[in-house]
Amino acid sequence: MAKQLQITPLGGLGGIGKNMTVFEYGRNMLVVDCGVMFPSSDMYGIDLVLPDFEVVVKNQDRLRGIVLTHGHMDHIGALPYLVQQIETVIYGTPLTLGLVKKQLEEKGLLHKAELRVLQQGDTIQLGPFKVSPFAVAHSIPDAVGLVIETPVGKVVHTGDYKLDETPAGGRTTDLAALRRLTKGGVLAMLGDSTNADEPGRTETEAVVRETLDRLFIQAKGQRIIIATFSSLLARLQEIVDLAQKHGRKVALTGRSLVENVELARDLGYLRVPDDIIIDAQARIAPGKVVVLSTGSQGEPRSALNRMADGTHRQVKVGQGDVIIISGGTIPGNEEDVSRMINNLFERGANVIYGALAKVHVSGHGSREDMRAMLEAVRPRFLIPVHGEPRHRYLHRQLAQEVGLPQDRVFILKDGIPWASDGTKAWTEKAIALDDVLVDGRLVGEIGEVVIRDRQRLSQDGFIVALIPVNKKRQLVGEPQLVSRGFVALDTSTELLDASRKEIKRQVSRGNQDLKQPLEQLFYRMTQLRPVVLPQFIQV
Amino acid sequence: MAKQLQITPLGGLGGIGKNMTVFEYGRNMLVVDCGVMFPSSDMYGIDLVLPDFEVVVKNQDRLRGIVLTHGHMDHIGALPYLVQQIETVIYGTPLTLGLVKKQLEEKGLLHKAELRVLQQGDTIQLGPFKVSPFAVAHSIPDAVGLVIETPVGKVVHTGDYKLDETPAGGRTTDLAALRRLTKGGVLAMLGDSTNADEPGRTETEAVVRETLDRLFIQAKGQRIIIATFSSLLARLQEIVDLAQKHGRKVALTGRSLVENVELARDLGYLRVPDDIIIDAQARIAPGKVVVLSTGSQGEPRSALNRMADGTHRQVKVGQGDVIIISGGTIPGNEEDVSRMINNLFERGANVIYGALAKVHVSGHGSREDMRAMLEAVRPRFLIPVHGEPRHRYLHRQLAQEVGLPQDRVFILKDGIPWASDGTKAWTEKAIALDDVLVDGRLVGEIGEVVIRDRQRLSQDGFIVALIPVNKKRQLVGEPQLVSRGFVALDTSTELLDASRKEIKRQVSRGNQDLKQPLEQLFYRMTQLRPVVLPQFIQV
Repeated sequence: MAKQLQITPLGGLGGIGKNMTVFEYGRNMLVVDCGVMFPSSDMYGIDLVLPDFEVVVKNQDRLRGIVLTHGHMDHIGALPYLVQQIETVIYGTPLTLGLVKKQLEEKGLLHKAELRVLQQGDTIQLGPFKVSPFAVAHSIPDAVGLVIETPVGKVVHTGDYKLDETPAGGRTTDLAALRRLTKGGVLAMLGDSTNADEPGRTETEAVVRETLDRLFIQAKGQRIIIATFSSLLARLQEIVDLAQKHGRKVALTGRSLVENVELARDLGYLRVPDDIIIDAQARIAPGKVVVLSTGSQGEPRSALNRMADGTHRQVKVGQGDVIIISGGTIPGNEEDVSRMINNLFERGANVIYGALAKVHVSGHGSREDMRAMLEAVRPRFLIPVHGEPRHRYLHRQLAQEVGLPQDRVFILKDGIPWASDGTKAWTEKAIALDDVLVDGRLVGEIGEVVIRDRQRLSQDGFIVALIPVNKKRQLVGEPQLVSRGFVALDTSTELLDASRKEIKRQVSRGNQDLKQPLEQLFYRMTQLRPVVLPQFIQV
Repeated sequence: MAKQLQITPLGGLGGIGKNMTVFEYGRNMLVVDCGVMFPSSDMYGIDLVLPDFEVVVKNQDRLRGIVLTHGHMDHIGALPYLVQQIETVIYGTPLTLGLVKKQLEEKGLLHKAELRVLQQGDTIQLGPFKVSPFAVAHSIPDAVGLVIETPVGKVVHTGDYKLDETPAGGRTTDLAALRRLTKGGVLAMLGDSTNADEPGRTETEAVVRETLDRLFIQAKGQRIIIATFSSLLARLQEIVDLAQKHGRKVALTGRSLVENVELARDLGYLRVPDDIIIDAQARIAPGKVVVLSTGSQGEPRSALNRMADGTHRQVKVGQGDVIIISGGTIPGNEEDVSRMINNLFERGANVIYGALAKVHVSGHGSREDMRAMLEAVRPRFLIPVHGEPRHRYLHRQLAQEVGLPQDRVFILKDGIPWASDGTKAWTEKAIALDDVLVDGRLVGEIGEVVIRDRQRLSQDGFIVALIPVNKKRQLVGEPQLVSRGFVALDTSTELLDASRKEIKRQVSRGNQDLKQPLEQLFYRMTQLRPVVLPQFIQV
């Protein structure tokens, strides 16, 4: 077999999150990103979802390194789980590595991975892959896309990006560097598709800055509380700068925010004068403080949600407070966010959120950003990545508009290898992948059956019927019913009597399988379908 | 006590839905609307939520009638449950009553209620209440607001409305009639707050008509499938008209759609030539048909979702199909809608939804509609209704902008009576209300405890430990564990062994309460908190 380049997404193409891509050439492997996904609401009880990286673990002798595009959890969060199983070198920009280091330290795994800085201007040879990062504007500083030169041609991985010309912190997407690095043409581009259904350009962060400035002026004399993502360091910098401008101190609340601010200050990504930070419970006039908080997604245990519930120890929200939710609502969190906003209003606060003012812009490029990227790179083949399937199909439509025929665009799924000899491209046979579910301490032990049971239990609960029988399977006592989440059985005499009667009837007929008759009985009486588990007890 | 007007919301102020308001004067009661609410995702397994109308049932001798504003389920859906318990007269416009009739018929309750037409131009005296409806534009035809003249002054209930000057069907909100009816001033207005966080005016339905026309032209030769709300009859009329214009037949799929079209045709609300309707499985060139379907919310069993899953019997979706989701996503349904759209794209269809084209507009007025309404009515007091709490607080802010001081705006909660003598207004002591949950055949039997159990079961499942003991509570056999939704216990030998060992240890110590030690054991080993139910079995 002639040597070919193979690119296999292990995650990132099923839903939003757990981004991880394997590049292979001969007996060489390169991994880009290793993120987690936050579970959809039908993954009952699950904490996190990991990509299935078994193929990397098995072939770790071939692994030349892991390169990271940026420090968001959907790009780095699965590293501790992978590093537990292999030893490797991890490349990234200083901030990205700082965040990785924190994660590995927490799990006592820092000794297992070597972290090496790789940033714009650097180029590194990893086996047959020559990797050169280029700066991109995104909602976390120090993000990069990658140009990966392979023996059969150059591949561009955009990472997450938008083309913001007036971003916070001044880091724009460096299309000039990208053009320089891709001279001679690009075989394939893996392009961020997240906002493919947003028309126009993603607005610049400068708009948020202006809105916040206006809100600071309007809120004169009132306390301001701002919730945002703890990784949105550029936004945090803006808020600190505005606080200085408007003569306010800054109080921080929320563990991840406090930690990230500390890390970013240490690494020089945040300029925060020492004397501006005050304790969240310091006594200070409301007009003289901004409280910076986690909780823009209404997460139950976040600082802002605790304020909304009235359970935050330091910050009591009330009349006169101005609360700004400076973060977009991630799909799936809508109900939590609404509930939190309602509770804050009911405490007397005035809440300003996305529908009311431009207090957030996306970190991902919209259609016109994506069009500009396609035109800058002009790849021979496009592999839309990130986003939901619809976003990748819409990315394909967009590519057609800029002249890339449909057969040059590959809509992959996780586990389907894309292959090329430098001229043609095709897909190889899919490798079987499973979502790896993390639940409490269990990693990969919870499977579909358990999830399906939880789903059913969540709807109608369960009943265990304890049926005392002798050796001949004859009833020798009153059947007992143990139940939760169905109906309050102790007050449902009718239901209780009917089930006992049914059990007696079935047992006297010699029927061993009571599950179905009981299910039918309960459905007939209630139209519910609890999980029914009859247990014969030999006494 | 001097006679006073009392207005008590029994529903509609907790979340979106179950709208129901009681007007009282002396020993007279008038009810406006009687709707259901669709449960939020934390109401595990619940089908519907009803308002707690106990106070109406108890005082049915005082009830002078029920007046309906329009035929949406969140305004009429609880009527069958109320009518089961009382006999009354129900007033509404012809379409509204047609929809009520269908519901009551289905439950065999038609004999218990008298339905009387009440429409714009009519006025009816119900005890001390003189009720005059006025036409409003909304997303269902034949919607009205109400002017209710009481001995202490006039009250306006806007119902659901927007001020569309070029609506489908030509029914705009009749502000002229409203001004005429409210001459001499308005004591209080109950005003729709749903879109209080939307800036500007709600766009006119004419925009949707134009977009659909353009999409019909672009889809020449391709099959078009459009999903919308089955009660959005004006939209259905537009689509039928466009089908005629572009030489397409119309196929209907989805039970509620078929039923509503039939009802609306019978009552004259839809003009559909007989020869344009064809069977959903008729053989016809793709460019010659529009399939009208339910499922704009991604409801699992809806027609469009079945097409997306590939389980629809008549309609198989594939390459070349153009699918238009002509309905906004109701909060809480985002994940279902996204999943459905993804699946449709993966079948090869091109899906056009709200983010991509103006294929839907809201039926509720935005801030500028609301401002115009406030200025037309100029009420002495405002009671924001409908919408989530945040929308009602924002309605209050808006009212302040048009000159209504904050103390003239009453943000009520369900069960808090608003009272007035015609000059002053105040709130009375709240009456205690419960959400009445409908689950299968059970109405009001499922309470908070069951919901909390379901919530917990959905996260970590359950374990029932069967512990065989003799009369002295000594262990006389091996404990058995029955579990679902926790971990696959049969393969978790370690966990199984540990729990048996713990049970033996506790029983040998004479400990009767095994729940806590077992919970602790499971948490220690897995960090999960399944529901644990130890059962001693005397053998």
